[in-house]
Amino acid sequence: MLDWLKQYRRADLAGDVGAGIIVAMMMIPQGMAYALVAGLPPVTGLYASILPPLLYALFGTSSSQSVGPMAIISLMTASALAPLAAPGSSLYGVLACQLALLAGAVLLACGLLRVGFLANFFSRPVMNGFTLGSSVVIALGQFDTLLGGPVTAPHWPSALLGIGAVAFLLLARRYGARLLRRVGVPGGAAEVGARLAPMLLVIAAILLVMGLHLDAEGVRVIGAVPGGLPHADLAVSNAHWQALARPALLIGFMNFLIAMSGAQALALKRGEKLDTNRELVGLGLANAGSALTGGYPVTGSLSRSAVNFAAGARTQLAGVISAALLAGALVLPTGWLAPLPLPVLAATIIVAVLGMLELDTLKTSWRFDRADAAALLATGGGVLLLGVEAGVVLGLLLSLGTMIWRESRPHIAVLGRIAGTEHFRNIDRYTAETDPRVLLLRVDAGLFFGNVEAVNARIEAALAAHPAARHLVLVLSAVNAIDTSALFGLLELNGTLVKQGVTLHLAEVKGPVMDRLRASTLLSALSGRIFLSTANAWDALARDNNT
Amino acid sequence: MLDWLKQYRRADLAGDVGAGIIVAMMMIPQGMAYALVAGLPPVTGLYASILPPLLYALFGTSSSQSVGPMAIISLMTASALAPLAAPGSSLYGVLACQLALLAGAVLLACGLLRVGFLANFFSRPVMNGFTLGSSVVIALGQFDTLLGGPVTAPHWPSALLGIGAVAFLLLARRYGARLLRRVGVPGGAAEVGARLAPMLLVIAAILLVMGLHLDAEGVRVIGAVPGGLPHADLAVSNAHWQALARPALLIGFMNFLIAMSGAQALALKRGEKLDTNRELVGLGLANAGSALTGGYPVTGSLSRSAVNFAAGARTQLAGVISAALLAGALVLPTGWLAPLPLPVLAATIIVAVLGMLELDTLKTSWRFDRADAAALLATGGGVLLLGVEAGVVLGLLLSLGTMIWRESRPHIAVLGRIAGTEHFRNIDRYTAETDPRVLLLRVDAGLFFGNVEAVNARIEAALAAHPAARHLVLVLSAVNAIDTSALFGLLELNGTLVKQGVTLHLAEVKGPVMDRLRASTLLSALSGRIFLSTANAWDALARDNNT
Repeated sequence: MLDWLKQYRRADLAGDVGAGIIVAMMMIPQGMAYALVAGLPPVTGLYASILPPLLYALFGTSSSQSVGPMAIISLMTASALAPLAAPGSSLYGVLACQLALLAGAVLLACGLLRVGFLANFFSRPVMNGFTLGSSVVIALGQFDTLLGGPVTAPHWPSALLGIGAVAFLLLARRYGARLLRRVGVPGGAAEVGARLAPMLLVIAAILLVMGLHLDAEGVRVIGAVPGGLPHADLAVSNAHWQALARPALLIGFMNFLIAMSGAQALALKRGEKLDTNRELVGLGLANAGSALTGGYPVTGSLSRSAVNFAAGARTQLAGVISAALLAGALVLPTGWLAPLPLPVLAATIIVAVLGMLELDTLKTSWRFDRADAAALLATGGGVLLLGVEAGVVLGLLLSLGTMIWRESRPHIAVLGRIAGTEHFRNIDRYTAETDPRVLLLRVDAGLFFGNVEAVNARIEAALAAHPAARHLVLVLSAVNAIDTSALFGLLELNGTLVKQGVTLHLAEVKGPVMDRLRASTLLSALSGRIFLSTANAWDALARDNNT
Repeated sequence: MLDWLKQYRRADLAGDVGAGIIVAMMMIPQGMAYALVAGLPPVTGLYASILPPLLYALFGTSSSQSVGPMAIISLMTASALAPLAAPGSSLYGVLACQLALLAGAVLLACGLLRVGFLANFFSRPVMNGFTLGSSVVIALGQFDTLLGGPVTAPHWPSALLGIGAVAFLLLARRYGARLLRRVGVPGGAAEVGARLAPMLLVIAAILLVMGLHLDAEGVRVIGAVPGGLPHADLAVSNAHWQALARPALLIGFMNFLIAMSGAQALALKRGEKLDTNRELVGLGLANAGSALTGGYPVTGSLSRSAVNFAAGARTQLAGVISAALLAGALVLPTGWLAPLPLPVLAATIIVAVLGMLELDTLKTSWRFDRADAAALLATGGGVLLLGVEAGVVLGLLLSLGTMIWRESRPHIAVLGRIAGTEHFRNIDRYTAETDPRVLLLRVDAGLFFGNVEAVNARIEAALAAHPAARHLVLVLSAVNAIDTSALFGLLELNGTLVKQGVTLHLAEVKGPVMDRLRASTLLSALSGRIFLSTANAWDALARDNNT
């Protein structure tokens, strides 16, 4: 804990301060916009950007992670709370805190139980599909706000403002850095500076609304933003704990997956090591902190973390600085934010999630592995058609389903001896000697519950194709593990083969697997022998038959 | 379809008829008792024993499977319907039909989509834990009925009858076959005959109640059993389809797992091949049939199927015969069943589920693989504490969790050359030559989303331990598959290593894996080369360095 502070080098200070300022300026429009996605007052997004990054800085391990409101988690919050309270009601705000507290407790518990390996539960294509589906849902949800009314009957002043803002942000993303470089800003700073376009837009929009009195024209604005720091009062409603349990579990899970995928990508660039269990603790406390200060569920945001990284953040101090600046912004007068038009916030949301529409994974998986591409599309479609919660469950089942499906089709090779050598190879690929009475099978997969039936069925089929075989040698050189289900499978196979008059032998059992088998009844029940090498088995059994 | 009928041999007839009679006599008490577990009138259990086995005989592939009411599925039915209707109400009965229809639709859809590999989603220890937990829940649920009142205030005539029945059934199970052999019944027949103890008990109990007028003493009896065949009217309630969707999904899933685990064990004994997709279709139609005839969800029962098998069933005709006999029993007068005391039915349930308390899997996994034993106990505990539905989800997550956990700890060996040979072995186990500038790593696991982060972390650690390495050769001889997530992992590794001044090479890439990689950008992005063998890599890179 706080290793980064104990070892703090003065040389890192400039980078951390610069990044802290940049991220704080990114946070103001983003926090308010994502709070709207969650169905909460804009200031909630600012509340959720103060204590969470401070707590993460104390307990987390990534130097670049920017913890706070995030688009997908905001969508999941809205989806969890919609059946329980009306957006804008005080109960809705209370439940948002409760949800953050529960999600934090889930994350903290997982961290203390050291189950960080859970981050490996989603395949990348499924994660990508989930992100794509959520982005589209979020963007579609902002259209009415962007246009000031339904697509069929827009409020033109709002629509012009909104569409103009989208155009500005898209142009800034595409040409902003180039423009800044042309006016003399150095390369790296230009890239980072271009990310401040949303803040610039917010200021310009406020001035525009004030100058043209657009609010009197019917353009909706965010209105008074309560000043002062958030209160540390967790008003809880006893009624809804149970209804929030399942969403909290799903939000905690996705929260961790989203935070880890971003942090790991950045850690790789810097050769930094993350401790997944400490990440769980850090994210858990960040969410609990958000709950205690009137916020809602938070996580690491890849877009902000990437800016933080690019802006030169070297340690968690950058997050501390941006939190302090946001706290300062709330202590100062906040009246200037009131004329901020909602269509402009909608535009920042739409452009932010358009940035998440990364299609490279789909293209790659389509060419590389059609099953992964199908899982990606199904997860994305699931989010669109069934909602974001069902999308998480579907994604989980599809990730694991593709794995089980693959594992349930293990590769098993019939081996023969390369004449004159001690080498044994797949007879489908090499010209090799075989003995009709001795069947050598190499199983190219760890044996576990997912393939035990398939392996036994394949062995039976191989035996049916070699009816003269009296000895079956399983070559386990590629078997790294055998679980309890597979142990029972081998015991059953042994019993079945005995009835068929076939003796079962094992060869090339790996050390750790052999240690396990010694603790079982398989070795005493086995009808045949254990051979160190396939060559030993061949010599013993084939010679045996030849005499 | 109906292959067994087309190829029917007269020699099988005696066995099928005998088994059909035995199973029908087992079905009468069991069907009525399990209907009580489900919270339904006893006759529902008989209704569910007629059309389902007929439809299964038409579409299923197991010759011994006995489809009908089953203890765990009855418990799951009760758990699904409890929040929606009062047991005994007519709505409850209607919803039970609806649930069977939905579960049947789930199974049928899975069969038509050919996703029979889903049967591999539960590990055996988790399945055993689920069965243990459910058995205890079922047994505890029958105590009040067994004793005629709460344990603290039993109704003594009922309690004596119930406890006496338990004692009789336990003695019959332990000594019944021995006794029958002693009076001259041949071995196999004696084993099967002992399984008729529940039917004998039912008749004796009815006579006892009638003789001693125990119903007047307050012993509860099942009362009038409506005669006649079930009606083919599916009265549906529009209101509850959505509430039943999730339980139907879980019941369909467990239904399939339970049926397959029993059928596979018996198929193995007879060298019979099951088609999992046709099993799904058969079970799906059996459940739809149960819904159409006033029944409730059904599945294959291992206890009945084992008796069916032992009693000599050779084909699905045995199931057809037992269904016909049960239909006959309903057409004949049913008044004689009315005095059947409920404590005796409770006793048959308790003794039946005691038979499911198989602790061998726990003992074996405790010695063989502690993680499997923990998953078993957690699933069993989950069923007891959180309920049977949560138990299914927990079991699924634990099965897959143990797998992901194992896979997230892949074995990676540093290789060296056995001096004077072309063999390369793990330097931790063999004395082997190494070159500080060339690091040879063999990954002993397929690469997929579950281990991609772990593999990259292990590779980074190995490089940190060998700081002089300029070439990293990944030996992929044990890598049978690479998924899209792992492809991205390799691309990232390649990028990171370039920055560290290390060249990444691949060696011994398997044919199918290489075919996949050719469709990706990895081969063009790779900083190093692809070697056919580790020896080739060694010769090229070590010689290179030596000049």
